[in-house]
Amino acid sequence: MRSVSVIGIGETKMGSFPEKSIRSMIREAGSKAIEDAGIDKSQIGAVYMGNFNSSYWCGQSHIGALAAEELELTGKPHQRAEAACASAGLAFRQGMLAVACGLYDVVIVGGVEKMTHVSTEAVTYGLAGAADYEYEAGIGATFPSIFAMIANRYMYEYGTTRDQIAAVPVQSHENALLNPDAQMHKSITIEKVKAGFPVAYPLTVYDCSLISDGSAFAVLAATETLKDAGKNKKVIEIIGSGHGGDSLGIAKRENITSFAATKLAANEAYKMAGLTASDVDIAEVHDCFSITQIINTEDLGFFKKGKGSQAVIEGQTAIAGKIPVNTSGGLKAKGHPVGATGISQIFEIVMQLREEAGERQVKNAEIGLAHNLGGTAATCLIHILKRRQ
Amino acid sequence: MRSVSVIGIGETKMGSFPEKSIRSMIREAGSKAIEDAGIDKSQIGAVYMGNFNSSYWCGQSHIGALAAEELELTGKPHQRAEAACASAGLAFRQGMLAVACGLYDVVIVGGVEKMTHVSTEAVTYGLAGAADYEYEAGIGATFPSIFAMIANRYMYEYGTTRDQIAAVPVQSHENALLNPDAQMHKSITIEKVKAGFPVAYPLTVYDCSLISDGSAFAVLAATETLKDAGKNKKVIEIIGSGHGGDSLGIAKRENITSFAATKLAANEAYKMAGLTASDVDIAEVHDCFSITQIINTEDLGFFKKGKGSQAVIEGQTAIAGKIPVNTSGGLKAKGHPVGATGISQIFEIVMQLREEAGERQVKNAEIGLAHNLGGTAATCLIHILKRRQ
Repeated sequence: MRSVSVIGIGETKMGSFPEKSIRSMIREAGSKAIEDAGIDKSQIGAVYMGNFNSSYWCGQSHIGALAAEELELTGKPHQRAEAACASAGLAFRQGMLAVACGLYDVVIVGGVEKMTHVSTEAVTYGLAGAADYEYEAGIGATFPSIFAMIANRYMYEYGTTRDQIAAVPVQSHENALLNPDAQMHKSITIEKVKAGFPVAYPLTVYDCSLISDGSAFAVLAATETLKDAGKNKKVIEIIGSGHGGDSLGIAKRENITSFAATKLAANEAYKMAGLTASDVDIAEVHDCFSITQIINTEDLGFFKKGKGSQAVIEGQTAIAGKIPVNTSGGLKAKGHPVGATGISQIFEIVMQLREEAGERQVKNAEIGLAHNLGGTAATCLIHILKRRQ
Repeated sequence: MRSVSVIGIGETKMGSFPEKSIRSMIREAGSKAIEDAGIDKSQIGAVYMGNFNSSYWCGQSHIGALAAEELELTGKPHQRAEAACASAGLAFRQGMLAVACGLYDVVIVGGVEKMTHVSTEAVTYGLAGAADYEYEAGIGATFPSIFAMIANRYMYEYGTTRDQIAAVPVQSHENALLNPDAQMHKSITIEKVKAGFPVAYPLTVYDCSLISDGSAFAVLAATETLKDAGKNKKVIEIIGSGHGGDSLGIAKRENITSFAATKLAANEAYKMAGLTASDVDIAEVHDCFSITQIINTEDLGFFKKGKGSQAVIEGQTAIAGKIPVNTSGGLKAKGHPVGATGISQIFEIVMQLREEAGERQVKNAEIGLAHNLGGTAATCLIHILKRRQ
């Protein structure tokens, strides 16, 4: 299969935008990505969209068709991928594979979600559909409660304290202060996290990712078709892709403090890239809850089991640390427009590898990893990107 | 890219099954397909699901994860494709491409929908999300009204009569009498169609496809990996695949009596297969409404523009005709579980090409075409299958 590169990126600011429609967010982010790629639209072969639940929240399904029309790509094949919070990561992989196997030379991949205009109850019900409706959501186990169970078990198994877990969102909020696209621009402390509105013990509102509107896009092209690709700092090569699965509900798992889907996807992506965890310079890691980031950074191989939160406290995941994690602010503070998140993560990695990340720029980052999780880690998509020398 | 074949199929009966869950329908149809393929589950590399709107109708998104778990394929990469009524056709193409490009040797593709347990209002609202919510559905233009506008314009342009259009569902109902999986087993007449409950002139309830629960699956494999593939009558090769798009809403189209998405997908599929319309022996053609089948059979190149209904009246599309269409009974009488329909069509084509279609068997069919439309023809997926000699 052919090498594929990201040649353009675009996103909206993340936040609460009652005045913006799905359509307008697609136009804004998609047009930016096409302009950034510097290509003529006619070169685009197909449209790949991630969207989680506009069917329920907006009455609008068939988002692929909407995106193709709105980006003036009518007539191009279009599709929508859905894998809960990993919908955009999945769309990214599908678009990449289509280029890799020669079906198209250039594709546009994107994600969008509009969530803030409905009630908290409707957001909660819609999100719960990413878990097992029959055995979890339908009997009251919404996501905060499921991840709270995971957090409690994790604290029991590894002796991790509430304070240690609380260090994760504190860092995300610090990073988001440096990201103009982030929804949340507010410093917090461990004390503030612990004293936050209780959601499901030990998680408070500060351990939970945001409810957001937003959209993110990327333009992908076969590297061999790009002129001067090797010299072009804007061309970021996708050197690894992994896709892992696990049971929909957590009742069928032997272990809930490690995510098999993350491990499977990481194995596939590292193998394709010919790398190990220690080669990764920066990562965006799915942090729907504070505990999720901790477990994922361990399953990705960045830290030993039980040491994920300690690594945050020691500054290893900070912008100037050994392996900066969620320099964007993550789902916690940049925002989590569910069906756009996977490509919003790619956006950050590309910005960093291009050295266009402004105040939050990591020095000398060459290899970046984007990790996108769906549901209670029932789906995982991982992509590894590399700056061309 | 490698040749890909269908090596197993399975489906539920289509109908109104309030006692069946999405989960149980997936298990029933998926298990049948795996058994039919005669493979060990461990050979399956990934799961591709089509589903339109269980998010809204059942509170269950993340159908890929549900299917992988229910088919005891936990850990395998899984995904859900959504392109309105073409969701399963899209999942089929994605699975086929993954095998064609060497990512996996064997995949399972399926579709599921559960619709009959909710109110007619909820079905209508959910379906309307496949059109343009902002400019069509949200202001009252549900699907019957949109296709009624198309029917009226078609009658005006081509002089086609109400009686001619009514001949389409009459034939579908006749065919469904011979299909044990069909939802509707009832003969109707042109008079009965015309006198049916009015939905949107000229369409009555008999011009509209059914509201159905159901699931259909297929197992796909790289042809080169199959032993004795050339001699195995159960191995049906996929020789063409096409994917076309059009604007989401009809307001932006120059012409509403021809579907650009069908033409684009047909061009791609015919080109890949090295065939023309006249080489096709049988076809399942998307008939969400009577008028839709007429227009599509013309856009597929089976008949001249304006002659699609006359061809039905002349018996050209009958089981013993020149180009049998919807031998299964079609969406009109076999049923239309939206997210399963595209693979339910493939099921029929495979049954026919294997000569296992019982009383509705077409003689000497070697080339079959499945045509799956999404929304108001904003998406089209076409697959051409061939019996091995």
